[in-house]
Amino acid sequence: MPFVEIKLWKGRTDEQKKMMIQKVTQVVSECANCPKEHINVVVTEVEKKHWGVGGIPGDELKKDE
Amino acid sequence: MPFVEIKLWKGRTDEQKKMMIQKVTQVVSECANCPKEHINVVVTEVEKKHWGVGGIPGDELKKDE
Amino acid sequence: MPFVEIKLWKGRTDEQKKMMIQKVTQVVSECANCPKEHINVVVTEVEKKHWGVGGIPGDELKKDE
Amino acid sequence: MPFVEIKLWKGRTDEQKKMMIQKVTQVVSECANCPKEHINVVVTEVEKKHWGVGGIPGDELKKDE
Amino acid sequence: MPFVEIKLWKGRTDEQKKMMIQKVTQVVSECANCPKEHINVVVTEVEKKHWGVGGIPGDELKKDE
Amino acid sequence: MPFVEIKLWKGRTDEQKKMMIQKVTQVVSECANCPKEHINVVVTEVEKKHWGVGGIPGDELKKDE
Repeated sequence: MPFVEIKLWKGRTDEQKKMMIQKVTQVVSECANCPKEHINVVVTEVEKKHWGVGGIPGDELKKDE
Repeated sequence: MPFVEIKLWKGRTDEQKKMMIQKVTQVVSECANCPKEHINVVVTEVEKKHWGVGGIPGDELKKDE
Repeated sequence: MPFVEIKLWKGRTDEQKKMMIQKVTQVVSECANCPKEHINVVVTEVEKKHWGVGGIPGDELKKDE
Repeated sequence: MPFVEIKLWKGRTDEQKKMMIQKVTQVVSECANCPKEHINVVVTEVEKKHWGVGGIPGDELKKDE
Repeated sequence: MPFVEIKLWKGRTDEQKKMMIQKVTQVVSECANCPKEHINVVVTEVEKKHWGVGGIPGDELKKDE
Repeated sequence: MPFVEIKLWKGRTDEQKKMMIQKVTQVVSECANCPKEHINVVVTEVEKKHWGVGGIPGDELKKDE
């Protein structure tokens, strides 16, 4: 029954997000000692312009974090 | 002032979501003993491929949960 | 698989919160047309002083919302 | 390392949201006494029909809140 | 009706958190062009050991972020 | 800059939670292709009585999920 939400910038492929769901579920299952079937993982993509770091929207930051 | 967020898979009609907002507000108002006007309910739809159960994205799960 | 989070001020009894979990699950199940077993409801209590309305912490507001 | 999420109705301009990220970062930095570089601010826009107040979806409310 | 959640490490005084609620409400009100009375701000304190940066819990990080 | 929140029932040891933070950071870094230093992971423990599954609070469920 753990519930995991991963917020990150838009831009990953479906393959990357699918892998992330699979691997995060795997390690949470191991560390929390609970069956994978009880774990939900949600990936929430955020537009860069809606995510500020240090007060600057992501689409105006110099480096790609 | 209760704040309720309902995360669920995409696919419900506007009518279903409107009904959900109305009914959840009603029961929270009764149970928390506070006026409906103070209750906010937000429905957040998640694409099936972004919601994994047991490590498998929703669009690859067999049953429609 | 809907996931519901209810944030509200501290101060409800265990009985009230239990009832809220039960009833919210019931109406979400009906409106979303999905089995109750797939629905998670989490109640998060927030101290009044940590929840501001209109810029004023809840423990300094006049009316009990 | 503070993480701020601002949920609000759709309808603000990019300029308004950029200003919001900048100013919220600024005041959190001052009040929490931590460098701006450690602060993340995410703006999440919600469609009015998905945000109910008092059980009524935002697109059916009379006043524009 | 904007809803703001500020997650940060435990350790700020009540006075700091009260100021943060007040000032964040003020700037969100200005930028979103909506009355302060419609804005909720919740401060969620997280124990350092429960907040990892770069995979290291906050209570083991060298610098105080 | 990915931000991960893991909600789960109370009851894990500090060692388990530390391991979870470390491993989740590791796999998110790999899958999202971003440096570990940009990843925040927050573990939020929820009391069983505040987390209902199928409408029943966790402390009254038969099996330990």
